[in-house]
Amino acid sequence: MVSRLTYDYRLYPPAAGSRAHYRKQPVMPKKNVFYAQSGGVTSVINASACGVIETARKHRAQIGKVYAGRNGIIGALREDLIDTSRESTAAIRGLASTPAGAFGSCRHKLRSLEENRAEYERLIEVFRAHDIGYFFYNGGGDSADTCLKVSQLSESLGYPLQAIHIPKTIDNDLPLTDNCPGFGSVAKYIAVSTREAALDVASMCETSTKVFILEAMGRHAGWIAAAAGLAAEGEGDAPHIILFPEIAFNGEKFLAKVDRTVKRHGYCVVVASEGTQYRDGTFLAESGLKDAFGHSQLGGVAPTLAQMVKSELGYKYHWAVADYLQRSARHIASKTDVEQAYAVGKAAVELALQGRNAIMPTIVRGRGRRYSWSIGEAPLAKVANREKMMPRNFITRDGFGITGKAREYLAPLIVGEDYPAYENGLPKYVRLKNKAVPRKLKSRFEI
Amino acid sequence: MVSRLTYDYRLYPPAAGSRAHYRKQPVMPKKNVFYAQSGGVTSVINASACGVIETARKHRAQIGKVYAGRNGIIGALREDLIDTSRESTAAIRGLASTPAGAFGSCRHKLRSLEENRAEYERLIEVFRAHDIGYFFYNGGGDSADTCLKVSQLSESLGYPLQAIHIPKTIDNDLPLTDNCPGFGSVAKYIAVSTREAALDVASMCETSTKVFILEAMGRHAGWIAAAAGLAAEGEGDAPHIILFPEIAFNGEKFLAKVDRTVKRHGYCVVVASEGTQYRDGTFLAESGLKDAFGHSQLGGVAPTLAQMVKSELGYKYHWAVADYLQRSARHIASKTDVEQAYAVGKAAVELALQGRNAIMPTIVRGRGRRYSWSIGEAPLAKVANREKMMPRNFITRDGFGITGKAREYLAPLIVGEDYPAYENGLPKYVRLKNKAVPRKLKSRFEI
Repeated sequence: MVSRLTYDYRLYPPAAGSRAHYRKQPVMPKKNVFYAQSGGVTSVINASACGVIETARKHRAQIGKVYAGRNGIIGALREDLIDTSRESTAAIRGLASTPAGAFGSCRHKLRSLEENRAEYERLIEVFRAHDIGYFFYNGGGDSADTCLKVSQLSESLGYPLQAIHIPKTIDNDLPLTDNCPGFGSVAKYIAVSTREAALDVASMCETSTKVFILEAMGRHAGWIAAAAGLAAEGEGDAPHIILFPEIAFNGEKFLAKVDRTVKRHGYCVVVASEGTQYRDGTFLAESGLKDAFGHSQLGGVAPTLAQMVKSELGYKYHWAVADYLQRSARHIASKTDVEQAYAVGKAAVELALQGRNAIMPTIVRGRGRRYSWSIGEAPLAKVANREKMMPRNFITRDGFGITGKAREYLAPLIVGEDYPAYENGLPKYVRLKNKAVPRKLKSRFEI
Repeated sequence: MVSRLTYDYRLYPPAAGSRAHYRKQPVMPKKNVFYAQSGGVTSVINASACGVIETARKHRAQIGKVYAGRNGIIGALREDLIDTSRESTAAIRGLASTPAGAFGSCRHKLRSLEENRAEYERLIEVFRAHDIGYFFYNGGGDSADTCLKVSQLSESLGYPLQAIHIPKTIDNDLPLTDNCPGFGSVAKYIAVSTREAALDVASMCETSTKVFILEAMGRHAGWIAAAAGLAAEGEGDAPHIILFPEIAFNGEKFLAKVDRTVKRHGYCVVVASEGTQYRDGTFLAESGLKDAFGHSQLGGVAPTLAQMVKSELGYKYHWAVADYLQRSARHIASKTDVEQAYAVGKAAVELALQGRNAIMPTIVRGRGRRYSWSIGEAPLAKVANREKMMPRNFITRDGFGITGKAREYLAPLIVGEDYPAYENGLPKYVRLKNKAVPRKLKSRFEI
């Protein structure tokens, strides 16, 4: 974890006019930054980009330009870099309240060094051509793994590079960080939507819909569906049933609970994780498609459950699949999440300036009763390819709800509103110019 | 349209202490209000309730109590009335920012007088028992029809009643009013969600999802899907395709346009009305269920279209069905809509005090370039059972988009934000006590 370079003069530049200016010191060459967004975007990943760029702009003595990969890491492979220095201060500030990936993201997994050494070497070639000294990779578990490998290869090739992973994933499944930027906002979206839709169903259940099913994202970890539980304040409040990927789905138990809930409260609100699966690991609704990482593309748990309810219990149902709406809903982002997303971007630059490498800034929860957080760091070797599941004690004994412990963990993450500016009734999201950096390499790289 | 009663003294009460007090005048008995919510709820129907109750409370000399039907009109049939006078000023104020139906709504259609005279007579019996002089029915086309019939029957029975319909429907399909309270907010939700999800898809399309389909409500009229068009600011902006129930679905043309759009822009965002149908009137995705009004329960257009895209074009897709989320999303309500919803509730009381009967307050658009609106009125006989479709000149020639004329009409309806208060990261919606009014009738009524 100790950097190969000594950056003391970068970190502590001599005060202007001080005698230190006249001391003979090795001058560290200014290096450029390469920043890329990876995997599924979130409503706050651009806030991390904002944190990176604004912080880099404050350290012009040590950092040259911030280049972003067009469409993520493939922008580096193709030598298709975006020059963020062409964007105004206001445009960069606007990133903090603009959802999705302003530079484009991608689902392109770099395989192992053995399998695909050419791609890693190409990355280093492009980095060398553009004088990149800092690689900030903003993504989830897969990109943490890539980031680590890039760091290792650059070391073995003797190319000086500091590779820092900036955490981002709505799935909240990265280890060693209290939570993942992107999660708090989707959690807030799901909790707010559940509370609102539940009021709708409750109003109408006497003569109309009795069972409402909302499908939430979360392939292997039930964090997002769990957040719906925050909508409930007391006994009998919706959601009445949460389905987690961590708990094997049992149709009989599920239907019995739906029936009991309708009989007792007049209606039943179910929030189902897209990753809800049977004991043997079969997803309730596999579409048969697989993405570039080999993950099945999910969707359709809600209609599947609705069909069960209809055919077995005969209740009128409605279902919703929020899909991308939930992870792009910057209009209802969590202020806490926006601040943390910005902070990990800012920390990546600051840690790089401190000489750190192959690490990820983390969010560390304070120990007090009142929620507080600070930024820590974790070695990438301990982050990559490890999924953090919901602890069993976050899920109620019957497997259909969240415990007080889960609530304690989740509640602070959705606190605070951070509304974007509006114009003509619509959020005013920035569009960057995204000007390309002139190519320097003759070779093209097909991916 | 002229009232059977003369209410002049109600409208113009003599100033306190004036000589008028000593003049001999017929004293109009104070009458109670019966208010009911009908049909699918919206994120602002409670704002209309707030308008009714707050305005009634300002006219204590003429209006007694405001009773609400528990679960809508069936509350009257069952003599299950809610005494809103038991609610605090703050709770009633809170209705203005609480979605769904605070007193419960229902899908119970009173059929024709000939078919179901007993129900109408029961209503009058209950009204008589509770000294109801004003009937405010807050709903869509079906309830406008019921409201008119109740007015007619009360007249034929010699029971003095003023029946006023308060417009509410997300479908925006009531005639004679510029728009319907409830619509502006769902329009805003759909436009905001489309803009956000489109940014998400655009970020990822290089290596991932190319086609995103959002299913919007709107059974027979494409108003809600049309509002998605507001998300686009310029050529090439999403949504690229809108599917309206008014335009017969042509699979070949649709797929060709999807393909062209993906080839040109890299991705394609489709917003499809749930009522999208083939030339012969078959809905793209009928679930086979029918509600109490005999309407088919729709849902599943988005997955149906996605399947077409996948099998014919092979593009990776995602789809979302917002369902109840869109009509309960008070967190992103249109301020214009909230104000209009309140205003029609307030106007119902004021028009009643002016002696009006069998009418509906309407929203009248000003003629200036700058959007303005005021409250007018329309006779119920002209409102009931007429659906307002999208004019053909609101839809582009190819049938896949909205015209400048549509944009001009729609744009002002989503203007302004009216955020609810938040507590612990979640909107603080009121829950009323909903205390029952003691029954006065011995007879029970089974419905």
